[in-house]
Amino acid sequence: MINFNKEALNKHFLLKGKIKTEPKVKLKTKNDLSTYYSPGVGAVSKLLVKNPEKSKDYLWTNNLVAVISDGSAVLGLGNIGPIAAMPVMEGKCLLFKHFAGVDAIPIVLDCHNPDQIVETIVNIAPSFGAINLEDIAAPQCFYIESMLKKKLNIPVMHDDQHGTAIVVLAGLINSFKVIGKNIKNCKITIVGAGAAGDAITRLIHQFSPSTELILVDSKGIISADRSDLNHDKQELLKITNPNNLSGDLKQAIHDSQVFIGVSKANLLNQADIKSMKDQPIIFALANPDPEIEPKLAKKAGAAIVATGRSDYPNQINNVLAFPGIFRGALDHHVNKITETHKIAAAQAIASQVRNPSADQIIPSVFDKELVSVIAALIK
Amino acid sequence: MINFNKEALNKHFLLKGKIKTEPKVKLKTKNDLSTYYSPGVGAVSKLLVKNPEKSKDYLWTNNLVAVISDGSAVLGLGNIGPIAAMPVMEGKCLLFKHFAGVDAIPIVLDCHNPDQIVETIVNIAPSFGAINLEDIAAPQCFYIESMLKKKLNIPVMHDDQHGTAIVVLAGLINSFKVIGKNIKNCKITIVGAGAAGDAITRLIHQFSPSTELILVDSKGIISADRSDLNHDKQELLKITNPNNLSGDLKQAIHDSQVFIGVSKANLLNQADIKSMKDQPIIFALANPDPEIEPKLAKKAGAAIVATGRSDYPNQINNVLAFPGIFRGALDHHVNKITETHKIAAAQAIASQVRNPSADQIIPSVFDKELVSVIAALIK
Repeated sequence: MINFNKEALNKHFLLKGKIKTEPKVKLKTKNDLSTYYSPGVGAVSKLLVKNPEKSKDYLWTNNLVAVISDGSAVLGLGNIGPIAAMPVMEGKCLLFKHFAGVDAIPIVLDCHNPDQIVETIVNIAPSFGAINLEDIAAPQCFYIESMLKKKLNIPVMHDDQHGTAIVVLAGLINSFKVIGKNIKNCKITIVGAGAAGDAITRLIHQFSPSTELILVDSKGIISADRSDLNHDKQELLKITNPNNLSGDLKQAIHDSQVFIGVSKANLLNQADIKSMKDQPIIFALANPDPEIEPKLAKKAGAAIVATGRSDYPNQINNVLAFPGIFRGALDHHVNKITETHKIAAAQAIASQVRNPSADQIIPSVFDKELVSVIAALIK
Repeated sequence: MINFNKEALNKHFLLKGKIKTEPKVKLKTKNDLSTYYSPGVGAVSKLLVKNPEKSKDYLWTNNLVAVISDGSAVLGLGNIGPIAAMPVMEGKCLLFKHFAGVDAIPIVLDCHNPDQIVETIVNIAPSFGAINLEDIAAPQCFYIESMLKKKLNIPVMHDDQHGTAIVVLAGLINSFKVIGKNIKNCKITIVGAGAAGDAITRLIHQFSPSTELILVDSKGIISADRSDLNHDKQELLKITNPNNLSGDLKQAIHDSQVFIGVSKANLLNQADIKSMKDQPIIFALANPDPEIEPKLAKKAGAAIVATGRSDYPNQINNVLAFPGIFRGALDHHVNKITETHKIAAAQAIASQVRNPSADQIIPSVFDKELVSVIAALIK
């Protein structure tokens, strides 16, 4: 990893910014100035006063996503604030343009109170065609996203939640093809009840309501016996733990078909995997160090192992989902990204792997069809 | 004008946005992704946590201006709101990149309360290297700009005020060269006490404190006899009207050397000009229709006429100032744009006209040296 760090620092220093703006038109004459700026632009403004719905035909917002973060939960770094979060947000904007041709600009917020964040974003929202929330800590991220979805009529998606959940579901769909079992009648243990764990749980439940889901946080299994559950976890209890198990990870994982970790390094051991059903599926997604090293998981009998890392097979990477989702939402003037959209995107990602195998449950991020296949479904 | 309007509507419809974002780097391999996004970007974030001052070497904000408006005073259109203001703000961003290589993004605000505007901009300010406030109504614009200058340590400039004032001062400097008189011992009447009139008055006073300035608003001369003056006008009274004139435009303009109108069409007549000093200078800047038609002004004896329009000589156009000012502020990491900067910019713009004449007191907006000459002084 040390090499990547050095390389990254050098390259970032040389670039001084990974994105830039560009004119879409040349200004050569006074006439050009009069057409694209004053006085000509006044005709466009007048038109939009009377017909605000025509803005989709005249403004750059039509192809524009804001990547917005308060820097409170960045990568593995935690609450590092807006300035230090900026390189990540710029990178995300770079990916948006590279993979999907979507113009994207990073907005970092110097406020952390959820209501202030909501108000600030509502106040600037007419500047954008869609909003990708990024690296905002749980549980605030749930409130912020849900308030923005209520208040705005443009798509709002917290990618750490839903981007991750979509790619996880895509990976699961193919994993079950590989092991020849059915997701509908199995038990899945999800460890980590933050932004990603919450959304993964909800999306799997939407996709397969009969699957037994067990959600584990740092205090153990989310169960009716717990008195320390916040509002979000109480909501999650309604769709998990139907047999009211209690205990820790060991109790949860016993007889599970799938382990999904969005928690922390080295949480899982080989004995845990051995207590699972035959052909266990292990998604060890903690970054940068997974819940168990893939080699150890395989030795303990894992049929399939996925991680968040690019140097192992089966990288669960949000970049498989968000470019196509926002491309489609903008192209089709969708104003909400729904559960149906997310499941369709997961199925589309899964389908891009023609012959899934233990080492290939996920398409390459450089799959050239991926964005358009997903985008076609977000309508 | 009808032709420009049609042309502008057609061109804007075809473009669907006048600016776009572009990657500054190609993503060809997984290594590129790991360098410019996760995990490599984490090294840059970590560096900035410890050394936030290094952000100038690593982030796109280094070359980035936000063009921010609430759409409350757009062109000649008035309070048209954020969506209808967007074509103008996009246009401004296009000019920033075209003329000065400055990346600029438009942010339109869905709030009009001055404190809310200030709070919203403060909350998003770490996203930008500088802020150009645009088309915000007076008197709120004065409060908003002054609060932001106090709260932020990046340059903030309301261009309708200071960009206009700088170019007016540049035009005046050359006008006085042409008529062979001295600005220091003359009387200047300024009509219109909104954003532009306020800033023009202050900047001329800074440049030449001995000049007698008379400021006229819709109720007449700003004088100590008035009981209806708001805070801003009371402040302006301290630097204007030393002889406590009262009355209307007629009283004000008598014996003036210069008329500067930032008010409304056809406010000035030939008799007014005839009551001025020999070789009167007329800046009739109301848009789109000036306070007096240049032909009529000339017939009444005007030595020099300037307007805001591109189809007459001597266009007082902000685009002569703001690109160089922000280019310089970003290049030299200036955190406040001062009166000294503004006067230096005005002098630089004036100097770009080698041989000023009645029909050329202002350089061309396509003068290729202009931006770098101004930028060199903003440090």
